[in-house]
Amino acid sequence: MSKTITITGAAGQIGYQLAFRIASGQLLGNSVKVNLNLLEITPALDALKGVAMELEDCAFPTLGKVSTTDDAAAAFGDSNFAFLVGAKPRGPGMERSDLLIENAQIFSAQGKAINNNADKDIKVLVVGNPANTNALIASANAPDINPRSFSAMMRLDHNRAIAQLANKTNTHNSEIRKVAIWGNHSTTQYPDINHALVGSKKASDLVDETWVREDFIPRVQKRGAEIIQARGLSSAASAASAAINHMRDWELGSSENDWVSMAIPSDGSYGISEGIIFSYPIVCQNGDFSIIQDLDLDNFSLDSIKHSEKELLEEREAIKHLL
Amino acid sequence: MSKTITITGAAGQIGYQLAFRIASGQLLGNSVKVNLNLLEITPALDALKGVAMELEDCAFPTLGKVSTTDDAAAAFGDSNFAFLVGAKPRGPGMERSDLLIENAQIFSAQGKAINNNADKDIKVLVVGNPANTNALIASANAPDINPRSFSAMMRLDHNRAIAQLANKTNTHNSEIRKVAIWGNHSTTQYPDINHALVGSKKASDLVDETWVREDFIPRVQKRGAEIIQARGLSSAASAASAAINHMRDWELGSSENDWVSMAIPSDGSYGISEGIIFSYPIVCQNGDFSIIQDLDLDNFSLDSIKHSEKELLEEREAIKHLL
Repeated sequence: MSKTITITGAAGQIGYQLAFRIASGQLLGNSVKVNLNLLEITPALDALKGVAMELEDCAFPTLGKVSTTDDAAAAFGDSNFAFLVGAKPRGPGMERSDLLIENAQIFSAQGKAINNNADKDIKVLVVGNPANTNALIASANAPDINPRSFSAMMRLDHNRAIAQLANKTNTHNSEIRKVAIWGNHSTTQYPDINHALVGSKKASDLVDETWVREDFIPRVQKRGAEIIQARGLSSAASAASAAINHMRDWELGSSENDWVSMAIPSDGSYGISEGIIFSYPIVCQNGDFSIIQDLDLDNFSLDSIKHSEKELLEEREAIKHLL
Repeated sequence: MSKTITITGAAGQIGYQLAFRIASGQLLGNSVKVNLNLLEITPALDALKGVAMELEDCAFPTLGKVSTTDDAAAAFGDSNFAFLVGAKPRGPGMERSDLLIENAQIFSAQGKAINNNADKDIKVLVVGNPANTNALIASANAPDINPRSFSAMMRLDHNRAIAQLANKTNTHNSEIRKVAIWGNHSTTQYPDINHALVGSKKASDLVDETWVREDFIPRVQKRGAEIIQARGLSSAASAASAAINHMRDWELGSSENDWVSMAIPSDGSYGISEGIIFSYPIVCQNGDFSIIQDLDLDNFSLDSIKHSEKELLEEREAIKHLL
């Protein structure tokens, strides 16, 4: 069996991590051959060629063909899984609305290319920021593809929340379950441990409210900036790792008795406006996802979630002419 | 079960790939927790802290503790596996002998630190160039550690040879067996397909001698430069991948009916001077390696192997005061 996987911005820092981990079998396991379609902007094609040469030099048993291109139609041809990593970063003097619009143009073109070329059952993960609204635009431009095929990445935030809670409670990551990230992949996201378990104990019995509100939540929200401060570069390896977690769980199922966080088209659950790409606690099974329903949310949680929804509605408004 | 793994130069390009793939379980599998000891030079400690934060943010089930340090004694404490990646690159106007001596100082210090702090059964892989002679120096400075614990990386060359032969014969990597790289990890290395199989056929029946001598051999020897030309950066992801292949096979065994290439202390096999770190065709089993013996070598092969041996003897001569 073989699958075709598209990575955009594949010569960038995240792409350079992602391509090799996928080629090594970490996305779909050792019995599936993966063909990689790597997309870059024209000036990065030489560097991308170098990435393809290094992929070849790994002699991975699970890697089929590698193709490099600056043509989105070719890159998404028969694609089964797409990682939309490439995006325009915010430059000096650029307003947030400019950023939204510049990226909207990229992602509307890619949405069209997906619509016209990809496998109809493609799974799309948007990593490039503003990821949620970019996913919305791509989906809106792919009318023949189920909107539930489009998602944005919250898994890095989810993993960061697990790591922070594990640290605080002096346990291992693998003991932490049912953390959730709600909303937008931005500083308005709401990292929620009200339902989380540490081993068999409720997390909220182990940590105090002050730590949650004054340390945990802002730290997860602003972890990206903390990494940039330390590394001098934005998160790349951890973002690639989360992207693999997201797509793998979506395709092969998430762990039993646990949740993941994925930004997917809101169906109105928890009163969130339909259609925006909103992160919920999610369970994946049989290649599909479902939102965890009927959670009890306190007022702080409801307010936090509404705050992030408001941002996503504003983002949608800024690019509505492209929908 | 848990194991301690040291990576030197861990904030560099190769280290940044290696650390995450090891932490994800690709070195020792999903049932072994790995503790990572990351070593860097003092000016890189902030960046290294960023790497450690990102490792934490991955919430890997197989990752135990991560420590960062600029102190070799701490980095090698109880270490079971060491990847010596950090090395001084050749600067402008620097002679090869200067490069050898500057690195010799780094690797003699690390050899002493391994001797005094590591697990006595440690496995050491030198990736930093000149890798073979750096491994020799480290070993010479670790008198209490079996010299067979020190190796240098030829697996990238080995994988490159597989990939080139697969390309030429229009087969998949996984069909290629019994390729060998002999000698030094430098342009004098001898990539040898005289014993190689493509599926069930002899490689030498499928490709002509002119291609082997004028295309295949120089291309594998100079592949590093070809990657730099394309990427603008040296091989990192493919080097990290090969390092994992090397150490994993050494610990867990190489594939049946196949060989790997590892530079290990010569025992005089094939008339090579004892003690230099020389690459041979190798089989790994039960955590140990053995050299494939009694291969028929034609005159071209013998000359090529002697040529690479000569270079390694000259390298040893240049740093003999440190042995």
